[in-house]
Amino acid sequence: MNGKTKIGIIGAGRIGRLHAENIARLVQTVEIVGISDVKMTEELKIWASDLGIALITSDPMELINHPQIEAIIICSSTSTHADFTMAAAKMGKHVFCEKPIDLSPQKGLQAIKTAKEHKVKLQLGFNRRFDHNFKQVHDLTKAGKVGDVHIVKITSRDPAPPSPAYVAVSGGIFLDMMIHDFDMARFQAGSEIVEVYAAGTVLVDPEIGKAGDIDTAIVTLKFANGAIGVIDNSRQAVYGYDQRVEVFGSKGSAQAENDTPSRVSLSTIEGVTCDKPLYFFLQRYKQAFIDEIYSFIEAINEDKEVAVSGEDGLEDMVAALASGKSLKEGRPVTIKEMKKELGI
Amino acid sequence: MNGKTKIGIIGAGRIGRLHAENIARLVQTVEIVGISDVKMTEELKIWASDLGIALITSDPMELINHPQIEAIIICSSTSTHADFTMAAAKMGKHVFCEKPIDLSPQKGLQAIKTAKEHKVKLQLGFNRRFDHNFKQVHDLTKAGKVGDVHIVKITSRDPAPPSPAYVAVSGGIFLDMMIHDFDMARFQAGSEIVEVYAAGTVLVDPEIGKAGDIDTAIVTLKFANGAIGVIDNSRQAVYGYDQRVEVFGSKGSAQAENDTPSRVSLSTIEGVTCDKPLYFFLQRYKQAFIDEIYSFIEAINEDKEVAVSGEDGLEDMVAALASGKSLKEGRPVTIKEMKKELGI
Amino acid sequence: MNGKTKIGIIGAGRIGRLHAENIARLVQTVEIVGISDVKMTEELKIWASDLGIALITSDPMELINHPQIEAIIICSSTSTHADFTMAAAKMGKHVFCEKPIDLSPQKGLQAIKTAKEHKVKLQLGFNRRFDHNFKQVHDLTKAGKVGDVHIVKITSRDPAPPSPAYVAVSGGIFLDMMIHDFDMARFQAGSEIVEVYAAGTVLVDPEIGKAGDIDTAIVTLKFANGAIGVIDNSRQAVYGYDQRVEVFGSKGSAQAENDTPSRVSLSTIEGVTCDKPLYFFLQRYKQAFIDEIYSFIEAINEDKEVAVSGEDGLEDMVAALASGKSLKEGRPVTIKEMKKELGI
Amino acid sequence: MNGKTKIGIIGAGRIGRLHAENIARLVQTVEIVGISDVKMTEELKIWASDLGIALITSDPMELINHPQIEAIIICSSTSTHADFTMAAAKMGKHVFCEKPIDLSPQKGLQAIKTAKEHKVKLQLGFNRRFDHNFKQVHDLTKAGKVGDVHIVKITSRDPAPPSPAYVAVSGGIFLDMMIHDFDMARFQAGSEIVEVYAAGTVLVDPEIGKAGDIDTAIVTLKFANGAIGVIDNSRQAVYGYDQRVEVFGSKGSAQAENDTPSRVSLSTIEGVTCDKPLYFFLQRYKQAFIDEIYSFIEAINEDKEVAVSGEDGLEDMVAALASGKSLKEGRPVTIKEMKKELGI
Repeated sequence: MNGKTKIGIIGAGRIGRLHAENIARLVQTVEIVGISDVKMTEELKIWASDLGIALITSDPMELINHPQIEAIIICSSTSTHADFTMAAAKMGKHVFCEKPIDLSPQKGLQAIKTAKEHKVKLQLGFNRRFDHNFKQVHDLTKAGKVGDVHIVKITSRDPAPPSPAYVAVSGGIFLDMMIHDFDMARFQAGSEIVEVYAAGTVLVDPEIGKAGDIDTAIVTLKFANGAIGVIDNSRQAVYGYDQRVEVFGSKGSAQAENDTPSRVSLSTIEGVTCDKPLYFFLQRYKQAFIDEIYSFIEAINEDKEVAVSGEDGLEDMVAALASGKSLKEGRPVTIKEMKKELGI
Repeated sequence: MNGKTKIGIIGAGRIGRLHAENIARLVQTVEIVGISDVKMTEELKIWASDLGIALITSDPMELINHPQIEAIIICSSTSTHADFTMAAAKMGKHVFCEKPIDLSPQKGLQAIKTAKEHKVKLQLGFNRRFDHNFKQVHDLTKAGKVGDVHIVKITSRDPAPPSPAYVAVSGGIFLDMMIHDFDMARFQAGSEIVEVYAAGTVLVDPEIGKAGDIDTAIVTLKFANGAIGVIDNSRQAVYGYDQRVEVFGSKGSAQAENDTPSRVSLSTIEGVTCDKPLYFFLQRYKQAFIDEIYSFIEAINEDKEVAVSGEDGLEDMVAALASGKSLKEGRPVTIKEMKKELGI
Repeated sequence: MNGKTKIGIIGAGRIGRLHAENIARLVQTVEIVGISDVKMTEELKIWASDLGIALITSDPMELINHPQIEAIIICSSTSTHADFTMAAAKMGKHVFCEKPIDLSPQKGLQAIKTAKEHKVKLQLGFNRRFDHNFKQVHDLTKAGKVGDVHIVKITSRDPAPPSPAYVAVSGGIFLDMMIHDFDMARFQAGSEIVEVYAAGTVLVDPEIGKAGDIDTAIVTLKFANGAIGVIDNSRQAVYGYDQRVEVFGSKGSAQAENDTPSRVSLSTIEGVTCDKPLYFFLQRYKQAFIDEIYSFIEAINEDKEVAVSGEDGLEDMVAALASGKSLKEGRPVTIKEMKKELGI
Repeated sequence: MNGKTKIGIIGAGRIGRLHAENIARLVQTVEIVGISDVKMTEELKIWASDLGIALITSDPMELINHPQIEAIIICSSTSTHADFTMAAAKMGKHVFCEKPIDLSPQKGLQAIKTAKEHKVKLQLGFNRRFDHNFKQVHDLTKAGKVGDVHIVKITSRDPAPPSPAYVAVSGGIFLDMMIHDFDMARFQAGSEIVEVYAAGTVLVDPEIGKAGDIDTAIVTLKFANGAIGVIDNSRQAVYGYDQRVEVFGSKGSAQAENDTPSRVSLSTIEGVTCDKPLYFFLQRYKQAFIDEIYSFIEAINEDKEVAVSGEDGLEDMVAALASGKSLKEGRPVTIKEMKKELGI
């Protein structure tokens, strides 16, 4: 017994490996007992062995059923999230599940209920809440520094568009990309979204349009607490990953600007030039990916509420679906209407 | 003959005096022949005399009919704008008219037509187009530095709310305040607004709500060129006059931050503190008020298009009215629909 | 009698005209009774007439002896400063004298004494003390925000080097350029300089070296209050006029960055680019040139201490001369030693 | 054989543990074979074991003589640096030695020579060269972006003063603190220091003065390439660790500002407030401590020049000693004179 929290990781793709490496190297209070992946390559075995992970398996149930493992981190494909969550919950294992919990909100709700029934923690991987900048805005707001929240503004733009092939299976910009911003909006407003209105268009890549999606969008939000908000998304900001948040209220405004590789400026006859924002989410949210795990482990060990619950993920998803409906029908759509339609 | 352009100013209120002082002191190419005001006080006479204005009258027609005067600057109350514009045009005088040209778009249109018929210049007082920051964003965009425009974002917040009494006669936040931002949006997008969707609420002062208005608003815009945009307004940013613009496009993004009284930062154990934005429009747009006059005089003397036309003012007004309708009816409203309803 | 302070201006070169235009247009409390210049051109007469200046003369004594004139602004060549100051003082006229008061500190001291004897105000034209940024640093320091002053740092670089011909008669970088920074250092430190050490070299233009001067310098300062400081000068900062100040103390640090034409940033694939500093002193210190006149008039009318005294100018000059000596002899030089050598 | 570079670490104090933890967790290409410390506590054994370090010993020679170990990282007390360096070199082991290589430059030189004779790499722990900001300034300079270097300015201030007890044995501010800045100055100037002039005083804590040291200093530098420079140090910047660099040259200026915990600003009625700089060197130079190890390992494996040589350390030390002499004698001191005095 080394007093560490024993976990298993399902899925050794990009995000699964990221979590595994972060935990193995940086999270001293956690031990990775095993990892599973559908593809058991030699390279995977070497990688896992280098990290000191003893058990490598193609069968996720081996982890879920493992007597030592206390918590499961689910990084497998989206379609398996809810099933593994429920299987783990039934075995009394806490679950950290990458977002979304499922493409179907109904099934997502079922997974949430299962976790509740079995009294296990269920945290979703909305890592941006742990970003140092956004957390600081949130903390200032929570400390009353901006007073009552009036307006929440989120700028969220990717450095380069996904392939049309990816777009076709992505679920669309609202579910694939803006869902992070709905979560951020709710996090910053400290209130639930009650209505959305979406304007969207294809300006970056016509192929995205042909794939049935849009690449540029502005969504207006109304919150339960009376505040209003707006999110803008673009699939391509050529200058890098543009991730900014502003919370404006009765006592002031808190704004998070982008991080940059350095704080150096070069003044020449042409002008004064500074760094572009950090290029993409792996750079920008590097520490946030670690901190969300710390938070999950703390929730388990101190029996606290998780920072991002299954219900959070569900609300985010309904906002995304309502935005899609709003765009399609050219009118504002309430969350209530959307939930009724979804039967949840 | 001193080669200066001779003008008359109608209205010696705050904005009339501002123009008079700017011109008398700083615009060497213009001579103020006379000024009129409904209230001929002693104080006014002294003030005008100090500025070297020879003719002070309570009758604006004296200026309009004055044989030497080539151009009229209309700073009287809104209800007189269109009438004075038409009277001046009929006398062949160029007109610089404070915004709006009239509270009725139909009458505004009539004034515009009259100016056209008599071949006089008609420029409206949307001074923010001349702000050094916003002009720089516009110039960068026009020079192709941001590529095709995808998103226009405007933050526009006053430092303190107007009195409920003022609100009651103001025409509402869209016509009174956001109309500047509609003009800025069209200026930056380089395209006409075709549809608006307004979300608005009362968060600053319940009295504003009782006066039938809102004090916090977000309006989503669609432009003819396919770009989309968003404006947020608040009647009260306690930290000062918050006036920012961003134009985002295929090649990058141009952003204008607020001006501040100084560039000094103070680092102490409490944090690093900088100046708040310049407090209000007289400070922030000080030079813009001068530059719009230079631009008007140049348009006259070089027979060029004015920088802000009567048509611009009309489009801005229709966008404001459409936003009011959108807010009331809870749906997006097209400019086309609004114009049809207005019969213009 | 219009209650305005009546002044005369000696010298209608660049700086004399700047003061005349500023006063005529913007300083309502002052009337320019007359202006003198050694060259009485037609162009000068028209210019003066346009500004409403009635008296134009080639004889400065006509202004000094003019019964209405209360104060003289001396903008003639340096070699005449002390003589005109003394002549004006003897006639009981207050004096605003462009810096330096004389190339000889002994004669400067004589002028100061004469002004004192005749109980007239004598203010020198060290305009940078009125710069909004540097004044803010000073005010924060004076208000105790940085605590006891420990270090004063001044960066002061011109956008382009003067011609070697100018350099040859300029008195050298310390008297011609850094003298402003010695004044700034004393202003910010709130204490007198007691010792200097100068390092200097020719890096910008070898012709400057041939003219017997240097173009790049760093001078270390010791102040009477125990603080230390450093000034760096370059005759050429290709990106513009670089004028920054930092006061560091026991409770923190106040820093003034450069002003820029706009607050716009452009983010593209190449980087994030902002404006260069304002190009030169006429832009950067535009308002400061006006404010120093306001301050002078206020000192007269309210019988207050002037903001920049003759003694200030003398101390600045001694620091410049001591720096020249330090550079030449390769050792620190005390102000005491320098004054002794100068016999003042 | 796992292809990793095998190292031993001498000294398990703060800095030794920092290196050990960084390497064990983040530097995949290196294996820590063993660690030694004079105090073999239980806590140390557990800590080392947790990091997977098999060999823990009180005898550094056990590491130096270990057949598998290729390189030694020396983190023991300063007085042992040169001896361990020589012992390791004689065994053919590469050496990464924390700065300074010795308190005596003569003995330091001997260690350098020994390393050269035995053809082992010797890198010193001047980690700041690897700071992302300072490296960016250096890279811009090296790429010719600022043209010929004219002025190098370094601001370097600690957040809190050391104890007088520490000061008494520290070797003084120049050897203990500013030595980093001499190294930075040489790194940025791309040239050797040839002369220094030091101004220094006690403003932070009189106890530091009683301990025979100063706490506030400005040192002027002359470089072999003709550039000049200045470093300012304070033992206490209450707002945090102030570490800035500017390189100014014929084509422009590159400036590194401080890092901050977040990029959030809060605008309220009191002002606009941002984060203070990162608090101290462990935060600010976190990644630099890792990157210097990567650099050392790369120098070994690719048989390249080390990034910071023993000679660098020696030059830095001589500059520090010359500054002390300059302060004491109140005159500029050349490096040549100092070296002659030291007999090196």
